[in-house]
Formats: sequence, structure tokens, C-alpha cells
Amino acid sequence: MTEQMSTSTRDRLTTATAELMRAQGYSATSVKQITVAARAPMGSLYHHFPEGKPQLAAAALRTSGAAYIQLLPLLMDPYDDLRDAVPAAFDAAAEQIEQTGWINMCPVGTVAGEVADSEPGLREVAAEVIAFWIDEGTDYLTSRGLATVDARELILAILSALEGAFVLSRTLRSAEPLHAAGRAMAARVEAMVAVR
Amino acid sequence: MTEQMSTSTRDRLTTATAELMRAQGYSATSVKQITVAARAPMGSLYHHFPEGKPQLAAAALRTSGAAYIQLLPLLMDPYDDLRDAVPAAFDAAAEQIEQTGWINMCPVGTVAGEVADSEPGLREVAAEVIAFWIDEGTDYLTSRGLATVDARELILAILSALEGAFVLSRTLRSAEPLHAAGRAMAARVEAMVAVR
Repeated sequence: MTEQMSTSTRDRLTTATAELMRAQGYSATSVKQITVAARAPMGSLYHHFPEGKPQLAAAALRTSGAAYIQLLPLLMDPYDDLRDAVPAAFDAAAEQIEQTGWINMCPVGTVAGEVADSEPGLREVAAEVIAFWIDEGTDYLTSRGLATVDARELILAILSALEGAFVLSRTLRSAEPLHAAGRAMAARVEAMVAVR
Repeated sequence: MTEQMSTSTRDRLTTATAELMRAQGYSATSVKQITVAARAPMGSLYHHFPEGKPQLAAAALRTSGAAYIQLLPLLMDPYDDLRDAVPAAFDAAAEQIEQTGWINMCPVGTVAGEVADSEPGLREVAAEVIAFWIDEGTDYLTSRGLATVDARELILAILSALEGAFVLSRTLRSAEPLHAAGRAMAARVEAMVAVR
């Protein structure tokens, strides 16, 4: 029972950190805000995360990142042809972000951009998460019929375009960048398929 | 002379703010750090920027953004064919970011991602800057022979891919995402040219 409650508090702290970083980034997020949002006492935060905010942020990035990449097969599996699947994933992301009022769906990209030059430890955690995305994405696209080298090439372009288009769409309050990025990635798939 | 010195102090404050935001984002940057980096007294900061940090950040984003988009023609003009020019710009960006130790080249994208949900005023300034990039980029690509609708479509995809690939490359300490994004954009240009 204690173990279970303990695990639950840890999860609430990680989720609260992810939510706060998603909305306002790493630097603006304080341990005080995290304890309030998680309904957890400060002592419990330091019990689970003795190193405090950087350790919490690392856990939050890892958890969010693992969840985020699961969207790739979820959004693409319904389409038999990869040339339809890739832009459909961008269009689904566009619809989702518009319907949720342009919120940041995942803190990994934005926090990585914020801390890449100033928080080496957190930069390394973000790099681990992104490397995991690239590996998972390469495996998925290989399972969809691409050669491994093409699969890696395509997932690098997709993740770049998706992360950038999210920032542009959130900033402009317009789905246009996500749709344009999706169509560009469809052209990349088409070029790969044409060569085969 | 007073006017000139005064302008120079204002410029130093704007430049220092841009540099600090480039390295550590908006939230981690304090007015104290800005005055130290700009070698300007606090009173002078509030003389030029009565609203303080948000106003300084807005000026820094506008100045950086205006400079940043000038790189587009600079990097693409040497290539007669747009199919070469677009990936060459990504390759040049990759070389530059690798040689400078993976620094953030422009604070607009990263600060936009950081503040889009938490600082509405600054989000609007970032949106203005990005809208300016889209207009300038559309004009440039039109001057390179694309139809206006294609030019806008392409610049949206290029800016998305570039901003996202910068974050991935800085985080991974690898130029691979920028090169892959550039090749994807080349495929997008190729598809546009083929349709014509």
C-alpha cells in the first residue's frame, strides 16, 4: 500500500513537471509550482527526486518522449500507402493542436531548444529521447517497406519538420505550417518510392 | 553625440538580450544579466525600455528575426537551380552550427516555443516575425520562378524543417537532421518543378 501510494506520488510529480514544462518551459517552472500541481509535499518531491528540478525534468522528458513516439504507428497504421500515411499524421497533428487551443503537445522539442546551450545534463536526456524516437521511427518505417537507410533519412526529416511546424503553428495560431510540412514529407516519401 | 551614445546603449541592450535568450531562453534571462552583458546601468535599461524585460525581448526578437531571414537569399543566390539552392542552404546551416559548437543561431524559434502558451504578448511578437519571414521568403522564392502559391507552401515547409532540424541538431550534437531536412526540401522543390 505504501509502495503503491509512493509510486503514485512519483507519477503525479513527473506528470505535473511535464505539464508545467509543456506550458511554460523549463526555466519558468519552479519546484514549488510542481508540488502544488502534483498535490505533493516538498519533502516527498525530494524523497523521490533528491536532485530536485533537473532530475524531475529528466524523468518528465523521458516519460513524455516515450508516449509521444507511440503516436507515430497510431496515426500511420490506418493508411496502407506510406505516401498517404505521412501527410495524414501531420494533418491529424494539425487538427489536434487546433482543437486543443494551440497547446504544446510534448515538452521534449521546446525544452530541448530552451536548454541545449545552458543545461548540459538535460540536453543529454533530450538527446537520449530524440535518439530513441529516431530508432523507433526507423524500425517502424522499415516495417512499412522502406530500406533502413531511407527509413532513418525519412524519420529525421519528419521529426525535424514536425517539431518546427509545431512551433510555427503554435506561434501563428494557424495549422498552415503543419499541413505544408506534411505535404513536403509526402514528396520526400514519393521520391524514395520512385527510386525503388 | 548624446543621441548617438543613447542609440548605441539601446543597441547594446537589444543585442545582449538576443544573445542571452539565444543561449538560455527567455525565462532564464534576467534584466540584471542584460545590464551586465550590455555594460549599461539599470536606469538606462528602463529609460530605453520602460516596460522592462518583455519589451527588451520583443525588440531583440524583431532585430534577430530581421537579420535571420536575410540569410535566405545570401545562401541561395549562388545556385541557379532552386533544387540545388534549397539543400545547399540547409548544408550551409549545418556546417555553420557545427563549426560554432552547436550554438543557437537565432532566438526566435526557441523563444517562440518556450513562451507560446505562457507569454501572449511575446507570442504575438514572435508571430509577427515569423509572418514577416513567410512574406519575405514567398517573395524571394517567387523571384526564383515559383508560383506564389508554391512559394508560400515551400517557405512554410522550409522554415518548419529548418527550425525543427536546428533543435534536433543542437540537441544531438549532430548535423544529420539538418542534412536530412535539406534533402527532404529538395524533394519538395523537385515535385513542384515537375508539376509545372
